Amino acid sequence: MPHPDESSIPALAIVGVGLIGGSIGLAAKKAGFARRVLGAGRQQKSLDDALAHGCIDEAFLDVKEAVRQANFVVFCTPVDRIIEQVVGLAPLCDSGTLFTDAGSTKSAIVAGIEGNLPPGVSFVGSHPLAGSEKRGPKFADGALFHERLTVVTPTPRTDPAAVEQVVAFWRRLGSRVRIMTPAEHDRALAMTSHLPHLLASALAGVLPESLRELTASGFRDTTRIASGEPELWTGIFLQNRPAVLEALDLLLVRLNAMRTAILAEDRTALDDLLTQAKRTRDALGS
Amino acid sequence: MPHPDESSIPALAIVGVGLIGGSIGLAAKKAGFARRVLGAGRQQKSLDDALAHGCIDEAFLDVKEAVRQANFVVFCTPVDRIIEQVVGLAPLCDSGTLFTDAGSTKSAIVAGIEGNLPPGVSFVGSHPLAGSEKRGPKFADGALFHERLTVVTPTPRTDPAAVEQVVAFWRRLGSRVRIMTPAEHDRALAMTSHLPHLLASALAGVLPESLRELTASGFRDTTRIASGEPELWTGIFLQNRPAVLEALDLLLVRLNAMRTAILAEDRTALDDLLTQAKRTRDALGS
Repeated sequence: MPHPDESSIPALAIVGVGLIGGSIGLAAKKAGFARRVLGAGRQQKSLDDALAHGCIDEAFLDVKEAVRQANFVVFCTPVDRIIEQVVGLAPLCDSGTLFTDAGSTKSAIVAGIEGNLPPGVSFVGSHPLAGSEKRGPKFADGALFHERLTVVTPTPRTDPAAVEQVVAFWRRLGSRVRIMTPAEHDRALAMTSHLPHLLASALAGVLPESLRELTASGFRDTTRIASGEPELWTGIFLQNRPAVLEALDLLLVRLNAMRTAILAEDRTALDDLLTQAKRTRDALGS
Repeated sequence: MPHPDESSIPALAIVGVGLIGGSIGLAAKKAGFARRVLGAGRQQKSLDDALAHGCIDEAFLDVKEAVRQANFVVFCTPVDRIIEQVVGLAPLCDSGTLFTDAGSTKSAIVAGIEGNLPPGVSFVGSHPLAGSEKRGPKFADGALFHERLTVVTPTPRTDPAAVEQVVAFWRRLGSRVRIMTPAEHDRALAMTSHLPHLLASALAGVLPESLRELTASGFRDTTRIASGEPELWTGIFLQNRPAVLEALDLLLVRLNAMRTAILAEDRTALDDLLTQAKRTRDALGS
């Protein structure tokens, strides 16, 4: 039988109760390992929605108060606010408090936090690969992390016991967990998440209004994520700048190869490029 | 009350009983205006599936025989085969037979057919903006055209009575209809359909196998259509070469603007680009 201290969290605080934060609350309450789930946010409306949807037990407009009462804190705020929040709030906490996040970039966040926390307070970077272009706790889903992957990004300086607890946390929400370095995470996600967003946005951006009626499911699928919040994505692109540019340049090489094949009416080259891409896409499943 | 000759088709032939052809058959049988639905194809398996799914009443491996018996023929074959098929088969038909197609490009097809048909046989180009990356009559859906748009592309040389009948045909399948010139269609679809396919394929094509596990719904949505059949898309890209290249070059300008904003850490420019694209995407609905 697991020790109670290992198997339950007296007070879990979620800072930022949007779709991800709300889903963490729902999943934690369903799994039953958090005795209290505290939600902190800047908008009363989001907190009210999160309470109404059963994502959290208690709502706090004062994030300091929520964090002060918590043993485990998850930051689900925009990536460019996480460093400041964690470093600013950590001194208010009891020794033994554990911090993690759900940000889509990791190198800048981990580097900005490690070494800047008081003794006894730990931070471990996390990124659950789940989400949606939708926004707000009313779209929260207690099964959002089920069978999905969460990347946890310790460094040689991260407390191994804290890493274990954070890994266990995501597993209890139903997620699989993979350990990567922050830099590995950022290069991988530049390709699998940030580049798709860039492309979807570019494509939506060049559609003239007169052609909207002529779009079908292909255009809609390909551009769906362009509905994500611009300020969140500006933060992600800028925090992961080198890896995003590297991924974009790789894509531009490929687009140029396709362009050249079309221009030269090179049926074989074009067919080869399309066939290899189809093979990769088919392997991902629906 | 409509004249029986106007409101029913004694024998409708569908050449190519894949997802589109099969869906046309199902929709026509549901609407009840075709007394017989004949399906022609080169693969016995597809014909068997189409019969089993109720898409067609009779199956023909010999396309000539199906077309000879038909009053109205829809070609749902790859774009680079339609000209040859229509021009080759038209001399077998009775005067008054009407041909249309469902191809994703129109200029080359219409130009290759008009002027090359025997007297009394008409062709009107069509393109129903519906479909899927899936393939085969087992995915056919009698409601596929419901509330969707079909573009019909007459030219000054097209018989106006034939245009009316083709427009009525698509409407009876549940589709809205818009008349455009072949060139207008091709420029529009280069942007709304061919360019998304090019991008989805390029993105799927640069994903290394080691990163497949790190993809989530964003990557999957953005690349979904890359599962389309390469040979179909090679034909489309080459038949609509100038318009596809023009659309791609527009996109490259936009991607380059995003690249420059990221490189320069120009938060305002990046946010403006993302915001304008989000507005467009939000306007399309889900």
